[in-house]
Order: sequence, then structure tokens, then C-alpha cells
Amino acid sequence: MIDTTPGGPDTRRRMSIMDKLVALCAHRGFIYPSSEIYGGLNGFWDYGPLGCELRTNLKQAWWQRMVREREDVVGLDSSIIANPQTWIASGHVANFNDPMVDCRECKRRFRADQIAGEVCTEHKKRPLSECPLTEPRAFNLMLQTQIGASEDHSTLAYLRPETCQSIFLDFRRVMQSSRQSPPFGIAQIGKAFRNEITPRNFIFRSREFEQMEMQFFVPPDAAMEWFEHFREYRFGWLRDVGLRSESLRWHEHSDDELAHYAKVAYDIEFQFPFGWQELEGIHHRSDHDLRSHSEHSGKDLSYTDPESKERYTPFVVETSIGVDRCMLALLCDAYREEEVRGDTRTVLGLAASIAPIKAAVLPISKKLAEPAKKLATDLRRRFNTDFDVTGAIGKRYRRQDEIGTPYCVTYDFESETDKQVTIRERDSMEQVRLPLDSVATYLTERVLGF
Amino acid sequence: MIDTTPGGPDTRRRMSIMDKLVALCAHRGFIYPSSEIYGGLNGFWDYGPLGCELRTNLKQAWWQRMVREREDVVGLDSSIIANPQTWIASGHVANFNDPMVDCRECKRRFRADQIAGEVCTEHKKRPLSECPLTEPRAFNLMLQTQIGASEDHSTLAYLRPETCQSIFLDFRRVMQSSRQSPPFGIAQIGKAFRNEITPRNFIFRSREFEQMEMQFFVPPDAAMEWFEHFREYRFGWLRDVGLRSESLRWHEHSDDELAHYAKVAYDIEFQFPFGWQELEGIHHRSDHDLRSHSEHSGKDLSYTDPESKERYTPFVVETSIGVDRCMLALLCDAYREEEVRGDTRTVLGLAASIAPIKAAVLPISKKLAEPAKKLATDLRRRFNTDFDVTGAIGKRYRRQDEIGTPYCVTYDFESETDKQVTIRERDSMEQVRLPLDSVATYLTERVLGF
Repeated sequence: MIDTTPGGPDTRRRMSIMDKLVALCAHRGFIYPSSEIYGGLNGFWDYGPLGCELRTNLKQAWWQRMVREREDVVGLDSSIIANPQTWIASGHVANFNDPMVDCRECKRRFRADQIAGEVCTEHKKRPLSECPLTEPRAFNLMLQTQIGASEDHSTLAYLRPETCQSIFLDFRRVMQSSRQSPPFGIAQIGKAFRNEITPRNFIFRSREFEQMEMQFFVPPDAAMEWFEHFREYRFGWLRDVGLRSESLRWHEHSDDELAHYAKVAYDIEFQFPFGWQELEGIHHRSDHDLRSHSEHSGKDLSYTDPESKERYTPFVVETSIGVDRCMLALLCDAYREEEVRGDTRTVLGLAASIAPIKAAVLPISKKLAEPAKKLATDLRRRFNTDFDVTGAIGKRYRRQDEIGTPYCVTYDFESETDKQVTIRERDSMEQVRLPLDSVATYLTERVLGF
Repeated sequence: MIDTTPGGPDTRRRMSIMDKLVALCAHRGFIYPSSEIYGGLNGFWDYGPLGCELRTNLKQAWWQRMVREREDVVGLDSSIIANPQTWIASGHVANFNDPMVDCRECKRRFRADQIAGEVCTEHKKRPLSECPLTEPRAFNLMLQTQIGASEDHSTLAYLRPETCQSIFLDFRRVMQSSRQSPPFGIAQIGKAFRNEITPRNFIFRSREFEQMEMQFFVPPDAAMEWFEHFREYRFGWLRDVGLRSESLRWHEHSDDELAHYAKVAYDIEFQFPFGWQELEGIHHRSDHDLRSHSEHSGKDLSYTDPESKERYTPFVVETSIGVDRCMLALLCDAYREEEVRGDTRTVLGLAASIAPIKAAVLPISKKLAEPAKKLATDLRRRFNTDFDVTGAIGKRYRRQDEIGTPYCVTYDFESETDKQVTIRERDSMEQVRLPLDSVATYLTERVLGF
């Protein structure tokens, strides 16, 4: 068992991996602080050239498995700002609060449930738990704005704190226009915002983030069966995009963790360098959401089975994962340092399906740039391809290893006559020699899977 | 020449096409009003199952041409909310205003430059231009919010009204981490928000929208050459995703339209049913943006050429298009009604690359569902595939025509013995008979282009 108590030796070793990862992300163009030249903004991050490719691939992999490969799930892309009644009906206006305390010494504000490990800045090193603190007060986490032509004619509106509510609002429209009926699901990927009191742990808890959620609408008596189906289905996907099973564990919500409407809820937790934390939730939400929006809107959101004539409000099985924290989990699990012939190489062992760059074409000499570039141009029609002609070949391999590129294609002087190139695989570092005209097919099969 | 003056006969014919398109979009699941069960919210829209597939394909097609096919452009995905200094430096806090007038009779508010065609609701049918109006007042279009733990400790922040500013902020970071140097570009797709006084024309002018922007950083003396390159490049892309050249025209900004920093600016306009309107801008922004952010942040955003040692602030050539209005243009251009053997069919003639569904597998009888479904499952690994077993085959063809599916694959009783299927192309309605095991390759070539 690894000791990950705060301050313990294993936490220190692991935190140093975290520091290295943050540095690699900034240096190689995965993740930067937002608006850094103005001092940044706490809880906001930008994704650089490699970060946004990784993000796109991750979202595509989720969409492929959750929507395109299934006949019974369709997609939705709803607005971030909706009619504010949405958030009254959902209970967020009244209840989406964090308990918050102020330190009477340093005047800073903290989540009451997160003061462990924090220190007072007025009295250096004094643990916050030994400080005089105010009583906890409720603090609503939704960001507000005003919509409309002027302050006196405007409407108070909210930036959504989660993507699922608009799925409930559009349930009937989607069902009718896509000719689906329960059991069926609606999936959505989109941004959400929470005014977190203490954003922390890099991109794990930020104020602007992206969710990938799927709500599956079922007859009440089929809910538990579908719940079990999606537990297995989602765990399988996390493994397929590259997370190790030993980095994942199940956490069942105990009675006092369960939302009042939920029958049963499981989280999949990931062992981040800063400890086990929630990565994905698979929750049985009963008919709470549709019933609540039906009552508030006066619109009928029930369903009548055309054969049995049974009328019911569908139950919802939800799967919900954050793009940003999934990305962080993938980076943490993929990062490794290896000894290779007396040298250390850093590798991001990302699955080929989500790696930002699928293949790098590396001419062994600048004299070979032209024919090698022709190959790169051909590959780019199929998947993201890098082309690099600068520096020693070993150094170029290392650079691709560090950003997770699964295949390097080396074009050498022999290629000119034998029309073959060398393909090097990132993890095994094994090389194969292949005819030029079979490279596209060989790589497509390995990085796109067909 | 088509007469599209407001109220003219051609506008009326075209507006009826617009009405039909809006109805089709709601009925088939392309576009719905946001939070419709609560009465919606003016200027906000949701994209249904087919709408979000079309959107995704459109964004992918742009990204493929602007980033992945080019060695000299890299991507960025920045936060919607950034340090508020960004918008002071950019001039948006001071100047991003619309002139606004109030009607003294009906008390409604209008953009001063958009009162043509509007009527006073107090005195029915009286044109607003004949009403008593207030003097124009400046109205800032940025949506505001508060970030931070409490009202007394919080920071006023803005939802970005355009995506390009964060590209300027991250210019140095991106250049360093991606080993690029001028001439090179940074591309981004993302949401932006504007508190439009009068959202209108379906998704053409909404308050929440998405932009696809690319800023290309060049030595000052190369700016005009790159400007011309991107004018041609962008026009070519619009043609390739399916817009007709007769629906597009160039509009050069006259001296009084030009922003004070711009040297030259062209818009590509599209002939919407409601008239010619801006679709995309290709603008020469000089060194205005980098210079301004450099001055406000105190950070050096200049570049020194390593060979000539020349130091300069790069000039920017920008291409900027809205996802939503591009989608609307594609739908308008694609929509047609045809007489086919005494019957009328509605067709969305979308390019295969952006069509929401690439192929529909249609077993001729429910008895053939199983083997046909096997084919559909195989195709789904490559591209979005529908499966439909309900109703007469002619009716199923019409349904796919109406949502723009380029290929229908019919599995019939003969398929069981000859292992062949019939592929019908949407526009020509021509059919070919092909071996089952060549269908994936045949369609991949046509819908993915390789």
C-alpha cells in the first residue's frame, strides 16, 4: 500500500512527478495559465497546440463510444446560458452552495471542508485548523451575468454549472426529432463554470471546465439493469483510452453522501499524485429531474409506451466525466522516465487514439526534406502528422517520445533507392522497415483502428 | 439580378424558404430554441442530434484545412474568461459599444443603425423611423460576471466577445513551445458572447455563438502577400465545404468602415434569404494588437529574426468566421425541393464531408435486420452511420435526403446469397451494386477522402 498521507514520503515523490508534468505541459505547449501576461486568473487555463489536439482526441474518443457506436444514444450541443428558470427548477439557485469560512487573522476565505493542510498567511506556518475562523456560510457557486439591452430591462442569468440540465429540458424535443424512445440516451460535451472558492491541483479543479455527460432515459423497472451496464461500459472506456486498472477504483456513495433523489451512485476514482479523487460519476437519478422540470414548466415530460400504454416519467442513469481532469489523469498515468543505454528518456505513453500527434516524419538529412515532406503531406490527410528536420535523429526521437507520438517514420538515403522507410514504435523502440506505399495503411490501422 | 430589397417579391419567396428551413431544423433535430420549455431566451439556441454532428464536422473541416494540413499553423483552446486587463488593453471596455435608441412610444430599445423595417408596437404598423426616438447612447456589448469568493473580494470579469485576443496574449508562449517563428499562425475555435440588443435571423445573430479564427504573424513587409494568400485560401475552403460561388461575394471595407489600425480588410458575404450579410472576415490588423498588449502588460511581444537580427512586432493577418452563421449558410445553400416522378422531395445537398450522417443502412425487410446491422456496426467504426428498418424503402430514402445523408446502403434478400448490396447516391439517385466487403472502402474514399 502506498502512503499518500499529505507530507508523507510517497506524496513528496509523487508531487515531484506533478511538478515535472506541469513544467512539461508549459514547455511543450500542452497547458498554460490563462492570460499569463496579465498575471493570469486563478482557476482558468489555456490549452496550447498539443493540449488542444489531446483534448479534441479525448472528446472524439468519448463521442465515438458514447454516441456514434451506439444506436440508442444521440447528441446535443446546448447553450451555456439558458432561461434562468432552469436553475430555480433544478435547485441550484437555492442549494448549489459550498460552506465557506474566513480566517480572522489573514482574512482569506476557504471551503470549510478543505482547511486541512492550509496555513494562515498572517502567522506563517500556523495550520488553519488552529486559527480563529468564522462560522461556515453558504456561498453559491454559479457565475451570474445580465442579459438584455440595459440594466433596467435586463435579465439575471447564470453560466451553467453542469451540462446535464439542458438535456432534461430538451428531452421531449430530442426524443421526437430523433425518433428515439426509452430506453435511449442523450449525450453532450460542453463548458461549465463554477466559482470555486479555492481552485487547485492544476487543471483538476478549475472555474471554467468542460464536461462529457450522458443521460440515459429508461422505464423505472429497468433502471438498475442499465445502471450496471453503464458502470461496466464506462470503466471499459477509461481502460481503452489508456488508464491503468491499478490507478482506478470504485467508490460507492454512502447513505450520507447520496443526493436525496438518488437511489445509488458510484464514482470512479483515479489515483492522482495528490491522492485518490473523483474522475467520473455513474449515478442513478430516479425521475427527479424530469419530474421537477415538468412541475416548474407545466410541460408534460412523461412518456407513454405505445404497446403497454403504460405512462411514466423516465428514470435517468447518468455518466459524467470532466474533460480537464480526465486529461490530467491520462497525462499522470502516461508520464514516465526510463533509462535507455545510460541516458534518461521521458515518455508520455499515451494511447495512439488520443496522442496529439500520431506520427512524425523525420528525414535523416535536410537533403531528403522534399520527398519526406511529400509523405508527411499524404499522412496529414488521414491524421495529425508532424514533420521535423532539425537536429540529431536521437534528439528528435526523444522530443517525440516526450509529447507522446506513437510512431516515428525515418526517411533515409536508402529510401531514395529502395522506396522503403523505417517506422519506430515509441514504447518498445522497435523498428520495422516498410515500403513507402504501405505506410499510410499500416499507420491508419494502428492509430485510427481501421 | 435578384431583387432582395426588404418587402420585395424575391425576399418574400426567399423568406418562405427560411421558414421552411427553420421548421425542418426543429422537426429533424438540427436546431431548437434554448430552454424552450421555459419560454426560451432570446438569442440562445441549442443544437440537436443532427445539428451537433453537422457543427462538429464543420469545425473539423476547418481545423483540418487551417491547422492539420499546414506546417505553419498550430492550435489553441483558451478560456472564455480571462484576466479583465485583456479587455481594457484591447479597447473593448471603452469602445465595444453599439449605438442604441429607445422609442419614446413603445419604450423598446433598438440599435440605431437597425431601425429600418422595425415598427412601434404601441402604434401598430407605424415605422420606427417615424417615431419619436431618444438620442443614440453607447451600450457595451460584453457580458459581465464576478469571479472570486464573495462580492466584496471579487473581480469583475468579462465573457470574451471574440476569440482572437487570447491568441495575442499567448503569442509568445505558443511560439516558444511549438518551435514556430514568423511567418506562422495560431488557430482557435471557441465560444464567444455578445449582448446583442436585437438578436435576429435565426442563428445568424445570437448572443452566444462560436468563432473559428486564425491569426497569422508575419514580418511587416510580408503582410500584404500573406493577406492575398489567405483571401484565396479561405474562399477555396468555403467552396470546398459546399457553398456555391454565386452565393458568395467580396466586400472591401471602405475607408470609413476600416478599423483605425487596419490597413485593408475584406469580408466574404453570403446571400442569405434575408439579404447579403458578412460570413467571414479576412483582415490586415497591422501590429496593433501585439503592440497594444505589450504596452499594457509590460511584456515584450516583439520578435528578433535570428539571421537578419531585425527586431519587429509581427503584423497580423486574420481570418475569422462564425460557426453558427457558416452552418446557416450551408443549410440555406443546401436546401432544395425537387420534383421526382410526380412527387416532391426535399433535399439537403450538403457536402459529404460535413453531412451529419454519412451513410444509412436500410434492410429491405425486418427479417434482414441482423446482417444489415452487422454492416452498420462495421461502418460506424469509420464514420457516422444510421440504421433504419421502419417503413417503405422510398419513405426511408426521402427521410435521409431531407437530412442530407449522401449514401444509402440497401440490404435485400439477394444480399443473403450474392453478398452484394445496393448503394444509392443522394443527388443523382443513381444506384450501384457492390460486394459487401468493399462497401467500407468505397464509402470511406467518398466521405473521408482517403
